[in-house]
Amino acid sequence: MKLKFFTILSLVFSTTFLKAQDSLMLRKIYDEALVNGQCYSNLHYLCKKIGARLSGSPNAQKAVEWSKKLMESYGFDHVFLQEVMVPHWVRGAKEVGIIVDGNNKISVPITALGMSVATPKEGITAEVIEVHSLKELDTLGEKIIKGKIVFFNRPFDPRFIETLRAYGTAGDQRNAGPAAAAKYGAVGVIVRSLTESLDDFPHTGATHYTPGGLNIPAAAISTKGANQLSALLKQKKSPQIKFYFKQNCEMRPDTLSYNVVGELKGSENPNKFITVGGHLDSWDLAEGAHDDGTGVMGSLEAVRILKVMGYQPKNTIRVVFFMNEENGDKGGLKYAELAAKNKEEHIAAIESDLGGFTPRGFGFSGLTTNQFKNLTQWKQLFEPYGSGRFVAGGGGSDIGPLREKTPGVVLIGFDPDSQRYFDVHHTPNDVFENVNKRELELGSASMASLIYLIDQHGFN
Amino acid sequence: MKLKFFTILSLVFSTTFLKAQDSLMLRKIYDEALVNGQCYSNLHYLCKKIGARLSGSPNAQKAVEWSKKLMESYGFDHVFLQEVMVPHWVRGAKEVGIIVDGNNKISVPITALGMSVATPKEGITAEVIEVHSLKELDTLGEKIIKGKIVFFNRPFDPRFIETLRAYGTAGDQRNAGPAAAAKYGAVGVIVRSLTESLDDFPHTGATHYTPGGLNIPAAAISTKGANQLSALLKQKKSPQIKFYFKQNCEMRPDTLSYNVVGELKGSENPNKFITVGGHLDSWDLAEGAHDDGTGVMGSLEAVRILKVMGYQPKNTIRVVFFMNEENGDKGGLKYAELAAKNKEEHIAAIESDLGGFTPRGFGFSGLTTNQFKNLTQWKQLFEPYGSGRFVAGGGGSDIGPLREKTPGVVLIGFDPDSQRYFDVHHTPNDVFENVNKRELELGSASMASLIYLIDQHGFN
Repeated sequence: MKLKFFTILSLVFSTTFLKAQDSLMLRKIYDEALVNGQCYSNLHYLCKKIGARLSGSPNAQKAVEWSKKLMESYGFDHVFLQEVMVPHWVRGAKEVGIIVDGNNKISVPITALGMSVATPKEGITAEVIEVHSLKELDTLGEKIIKGKIVFFNRPFDPRFIETLRAYGTAGDQRNAGPAAAAKYGAVGVIVRSLTESLDDFPHTGATHYTPGGLNIPAAAISTKGANQLSALLKQKKSPQIKFYFKQNCEMRPDTLSYNVVGELKGSENPNKFITVGGHLDSWDLAEGAHDDGTGVMGSLEAVRILKVMGYQPKNTIRVVFFMNEENGDKGGLKYAELAAKNKEEHIAAIESDLGGFTPRGFGFSGLTTNQFKNLTQWKQLFEPYGSGRFVAGGGGSDIGPLREKTPGVVLIGFDPDSQRYFDVHHTPNDVFENVNKRELELGSASMASLIYLIDQHGFN
Repeated sequence: MKLKFFTILSLVFSTTFLKAQDSLMLRKIYDEALVNGQCYSNLHYLCKKIGARLSGSPNAQKAVEWSKKLMESYGFDHVFLQEVMVPHWVRGAKEVGIIVDGNNKISVPITALGMSVATPKEGITAEVIEVHSLKELDTLGEKIIKGKIVFFNRPFDPRFIETLRAYGTAGDQRNAGPAAAAKYGAVGVIVRSLTESLDDFPHTGATHYTPGGLNIPAAAISTKGANQLSALLKQKKSPQIKFYFKQNCEMRPDTLSYNVVGELKGSENPNKFITVGGHLDSWDLAEGAHDDGTGVMGSLEAVRILKVMGYQPKNTIRVVFFMNEENGDKGGLKYAELAAKNKEEHIAAIESDLGGFTPRGFGFSGLTTNQFKNLTQWKQLFEPYGSGRFVAGGGGSDIGPLREKTPGVVLIGFDPDSQRYFDVHHTPNDVFENVNKRELELGSASMASLIYLIDQHGFN
């Protein structure tokens, strides 16, 4: 009994001691991020000196080269590139979208969906059929849809507290709408921009054609434009109202590109990995500041902080700038494929791809119920920093393929506040000026803190 | 024992039932705010059709009249004005600030501190003495300070996670610096703007002269300007570097103005009050969007939501648009004075004056330790909405005077995310465009929810 009692006592002691040590370490991490932070100036360079960096573009290549140099300048133990073939889609000349109301022609802002085909050179004019779901499309069928432009106009549901859920539930219109409409003989698709914000900025983003199916041109229309078109359709009905659009995009041959990887070697388990990252590619309309400049620069900062503090990790810590998340996920697939090939053991992977807003917490996939419960202690460490919202379920497109290729990995999504993300997401407004320095720095500190805790304690 | 057991059972049952009912009510409140919200369009009117509304200005009067009509349009049970005499300070022509480096003159952005006196018409030129604290001023003493311009240049401490704490610890330079420097014979004061952001926008804000003391002119300098001045002082020392500034402000006679009050009458306790509010006045440099347009429009929205949902409060719910928070607090003082005079019993008062950012929670003053612990149940209700951070200690300038005048009142500060507030606070950037619709709506819903819970359950 005495021994047992003693054991309990020492457990209590060691837990308390560890907690105090961890708490101190977190404070130091946050101080480094907030006092000597470099992610904001790095992001400035990426946005202003390089800019938009769609997969396969010269800018994407510039971003790869600069990122590698930047990692090397931080003195990481190993910095390298992973070759990856990526699609090379090009937008071409700016799109034109016009509501044709008899002789009255109303110009509205549109942008081609990523991976869409072009219209014929002279553009397309057709009657418009407004629908609100893929199911409605099935109900209408070929008889009604054939030869028309399908206009998907289901808005974001504002009742979701997290805007990501609104994006998730409205997103099928963009992802799958064009392929579905093509099946019924539509000649083109116009999709309401995926945002709650009412403005003049169309949001691009990838659409997915059915392999072997007919590819019809597809564009996003701004929310104000969508409301205007919908109101006119209600007032005057087809065939009075037609839509004209012209876009000039093309798919070029696949191009060689790279994931950029930096490592701090593990002192105890060099073949066990904790990965943190985001994607280096961005859409072509702006600077990819929140999507996903903040993700890559925040992830790099997390590892820089640990390095500059002289932290010696037990396991290998890797920062990865994935290529091609936006229109192919080829970088994430390649990373997982190489991890399996090289027999790497992956403990955890954290992805930051929801913008550089105030951190709220993390989402975890791959933990047992008990392991998730045990995170309560860590959660308490994050609460003074406003980042203690731990939820079950999380990950990201780039790290997703690790689940199958490196079983046992815990996938973690970094969760910043989601309210402003879809104001700028995939639009010309995704620029450096819309990123707040402190929000970005706090995010990098929260990721560095989580990496530290995983490295020290694993998931018990 | 059986009875006791039964009592425990029914307590458990009723608590669970109440919790489910409350949870349902909160969901309805959030839905109304997010689907039918009016605060964003109301804020647009206040910012764009009225604009800056410093106490005593014609715009402040316009804001009072419009606000009263707006409350009346919502069908509240009682809408009225409370007369309050306010200071009437006027900035006059735009200020000029110049670093004089021999023959080289470098223009830097400055703005007069609120309530400051003017310089002589020709401006002031003097040597500059840079200090970092009021204590340092005491150490230097009259011999060194006399005849000089004192330049307070202690920056925000970035290590505070909540920027309000950085503001709190740097703020003495603006509030008390000019009066302290005057004691030692300084001829003017320049204060580093109270922000961590490095930019060209000087931040105004009130300074407080010592009654009967000498009033010397005082201005804020932008953070970039402050860094430039400090660097030159280090390179070249006084007396090579001088500073010139000219400002044209004046104090006019006190003016009659108003608090604007709207009520939903309590069905059980009409003389018991739950107050929610912000301040209607703003600084003159912009539109007072975050400070404190969001506070008044968010508070009004909270009460509108309850009204439109047909909620019958037990206690009287009051929304108050306080006048003159920025440079006198006369509205808050008057409100408390009248509450005492009219023998009103005040249960709680909530103030929203920290911007219209994503809500994180509330701070409470005036609760016993047990009462605060009991809030855990409410906190759980707020967590799905990201607004469950309840801290001990909270309130606001406008509701502060209630503590003395209506003992027993619980003072509550609405706490939105603080990271971006000091980017715009008291600057030309505090405009409507920097407010996010959803963030504002979520804040109004969180206040409506708290009012509902207090009204239903009180503080047990």
